[in-house]
Amino acid sequence: MHASIAGVVPATVDKAEFRNAMARLGAAVNVVTTDGPGGLAGFTASAVCSVTDEPPTLLVCLNRGASVYEAFRENGALCVNVLGAGHQDISNRFGGKTAMAERFAAVGWAPGASGCPVLEGASVSFECRLRQRTEVGTHDVMFCEVQAIHISDTAGSLIYFNRAYHELSAVL
Amino acid sequence: MHASIAGVVPATVDKAEFRNAMARLGAAVNVVTTDGPGGLAGFTASAVCSVTDEPPTLLVCLNRGASVYEAFRENGALCVNVLGAGHQDISNRFGGKTAMAERFAAVGWAPGASGCPVLEGASVSFECRLRQRTEVGTHDVMFCEVQAIHISDTAGSLIYFNRAYHELSAVL
Repeated sequence: MHASIAGVVPATVDKAEFRNAMARLGAAVNVVTTDGPGGLAGFTASAVCSVTDEPPTLLVCLNRGASVYEAFRENGALCVNVLGAGHQDISNRFGGKTAMAERFAAVGWAPGASGCPVLEGASVSFECRLRQRTEVGTHDVMFCEVQAIHISDTAGSLIYFNRAYHELSAVL
Repeated sequence: MHASIAGVVPATVDKAEFRNAMARLGAAVNVVTTDGPGGLAGFTASAVCSVTDEPPTLLVCLNRGASVYEAFRENGALCVNVLGAGHQDISNRFGGKTAMAERFAAVGWAPGASGCPVLEGASVSFECRLRQRTEVGTHDVMFCEVQAIHISDTAGSLIYFNRAYHELSAVL
């Protein structure tokens, strides 16, 4: 009954079907930033998750064709800023076609210990060193060791689900 | 100014600090299932995210020390069931110490084309083949090509944030 799993699976789904289904996997909205020899850059990402606490590591998926790709690759350091409730405008600004200087001019931020921008008011910011990288199709999965953390206890969370923003309160 | 990023980053954070900060990265709650030669297994996971749509791929992080690890490795196929609003009991059952047979006895499910359990009422279920695997610290990151999708248009989403469940409606 279970002997031929590989054989009975149908052909892969198409892109549109996959994207439509992925819209139903809710995710926190993050602005991932970097600075260093490769320049200042930042983009909005939902493909971020925790990997292990030995050593403390998270991952970020990034399209190798993205305009910010080389900056992250060259700098080897990044900061994952988890957006708070009410940060829809920041998400849109870093997720659109806005020029890099304008993105950072419109938000409050300061360089962390890594040199990477730590956004004011983020629910939490993780400063990381890029430790490992895996190519999967069009994307790189960047495995990042967390080296400094900045927490806001009052910021809620901004979640993207069903192609819309949702806000969660930090207060239970 | 940016020449010595690697040098200025402080020592890595400790586990407790990392876990406390990670609680502020909201995530959808999923039950990841498998069946095949390695046996029937399922566990609750929040470390799941989309990777690329070329080819349609998601990832799941799994501790190599987990009791279910060998089943997933041997079967090479899995189903990511994204839980809906109201599925807190299913999350707790698959995330605790409940015996495997009892976990599956308590939910409605049917084997999909892959043979892996597709949970009734999930917001969306992704049947996948395991294509690639990367070891990161204690965990394996499993890269899974999506081969069949089952969607519920009415189920909302169950999000875990700040060590509590939150429910999102599917209706805008």
